[in-house]
Amino acid sequence: MAWRPGSKTRARVVAVTDGRRRTRSDYVATEEPLEIRLVAGGATTTVAVTMRTPGADFELAVGFLHAEGLITGPDGVGRVTYCTDPRIEVEQRYNIVNVELTAAVLPDLRLLDRHFVTSSACGVCGKASLDALELRGCPVLPAGPMIDPAVLATLPDALREAQGLFEATGGLHAAGLFTAAGELVAAREDVGRHNAVDKLVGWALMQQRLPLHEHLLVVSGRSSYEIMQKALAAGLPAVCAVSAPSSLAVELAQRFGMTLVGFLRGDRFNVYAGAERLPVGVASTQ
Amino acid sequence: MAWRPGSKTRARVVAVTDGRRRTRSDYVATEEPLEIRLVAGGATTTVAVTMRTPGADFELAVGFLHAEGLITGPDGVGRVTYCTDPRIEVEQRYNIVNVELTAAVLPDLRLLDRHFVTSSACGVCGKASLDALELRGCPVLPAGPMIDPAVLATLPDALREAQGLFEATGGLHAAGLFTAAGELVAAREDVGRHNAVDKLVGWALMQQRLPLHEHLLVVSGRSSYEIMQKALAAGLPAVCAVSAPSSLAVELAQRFGMTLVGFLRGDRFNVYAGAERLPVGVASTQ
Repeated sequence: MAWRPGSKTRARVVAVTDGRRRTRSDYVATEEPLEIRLVAGGATTTVAVTMRTPGADFELAVGFLHAEGLITGPDGVGRVTYCTDPRIEVEQRYNIVNVELTAAVLPDLRLLDRHFVTSSACGVCGKASLDALELRGCPVLPAGPMIDPAVLATLPDALREAQGLFEATGGLHAAGLFTAAGELVAAREDVGRHNAVDKLVGWALMQQRLPLHEHLLVVSGRSSYEIMQKALAAGLPAVCAVSAPSSLAVELAQRFGMTLVGFLRGDRFNVYAGAERLPVGVASTQ
Repeated sequence: MAWRPGSKTRARVVAVTDGRRRTRSDYVATEEPLEIRLVAGGATTTVAVTMRTPGADFELAVGFLHAEGLITGPDGVGRVTYCTDPRIEVEQRYNIVNVELTAAVLPDLRLLDRHFVTSSACGVCGKASLDALELRGCPVLPAGPMIDPAVLATLPDALREAQGLFEATGGLHAAGLFTAAGELVAAREDVGRHNAVDKLVGWALMQQRLPLHEHLLVVSGRSSYEIMQKALAAGLPAVCAVSAPSSLAVELAQRFGMTLVGFLRGDRFNVYAGAERLPVGVASTQ
């Protein structure tokens, strides 16, 4: 088999401790571009090039396209392959993923334009960004499941344990899919936080598990608009982040009936939206 | 003055500690879209819409355009203003920045396309991404300055002290510009790591301080291709990150003569490239 990029790369490091140098070999997380192409009816188009950590590339491509509203379920997806174009060097074929659609024609890529250009009519603001999601058909999520705070406390450690690469490079974001009972279903890693979520959702889509109405998403870093939007598209009712949320993450969660937990560290955490999924049995002070 | 978005937003939080709930008011970092427009010869075009934390918006717009190679220095920039289009709601005008060019015509935006589509000829890989920077005219950085490890050790704390917002929201990335002697020149914050760097470089450009050959960039998180590419465009010879680098960050630093420090924590740090800027007086073992 030809060379293909791995998820970690050897690097020569000068480690300095208290003024003493030591040269050693270490690993860093691999970062390489991935070109995501759509194929339908004999036509091919490039949708995006994103920097990513190689591994779970097909899931990343499918998850990205799903978050963008370009594919809605497994029925819409045919073969997913690395590039087979003989004009492209073998090494680089692993940085190009072709996603074949079952549709006869390519979708209207102007759907993607909402990230880049919003009309003067709706303006440019957080509220308009949320309106756009509603227009695209993202529904308010149904009630449930209930989330036990004792379960929440266990999730960051469970995600960290699942993170094989983290120990080696210290440089990867993680996203974990859990049942409401706290059981790990799948975990994915990437140098890009959003890519880790795309990989997870792409996997779930291909496993015919969408919408993920009974699951929780746990992310190793912060929660932003982008993370919440991907979770919403996958039907995830709760997002738990180890670090802080942004204002638009909170607004999105409130508007679409999602639970948003931040600063999840052991038995301490903050709930920014959707506290109704936490049992009332949790003692309330003040 | 009309309402304009602030850099932090009040949020109602249910704080849970050991099973006890307390509802309180807290701050989260504001995240709102910013549309960056170029204006030249009576024509206007949208270059990008990016999610950002309001504040230093003009610097962000100018720094972003500089990193993309669309403006090269202060001479190329005329007025920078918020949108004044009367058809747009007043609140939203603060999410649109117009950058007037002194050039008679708009630049070729296909320059931006290299992020999205690379030709089959050069392929899609990290090396091709670095080749593209070289083709765009990014030179290998000159030798110097020397960096004292004792100075390095002080930088993360100095950056944290400068981070006014961080204390309030816990949700912002920071980028700091330092002299080689460890003096803080400027610091900027954002929910997006790359935006914090754009704000800093945009400020330096408008202050006629580019290229920043005698300065160090310190970032609160990880170092990736995107961060290194922006630092290179600004002529910064050294990037010091509190967390891990990616493989492509290391390759970029090696190729363009930059020093890349990772895991900078007190007197412990790793040097991934450009160790020649550290004095040989640092004891070497093994």
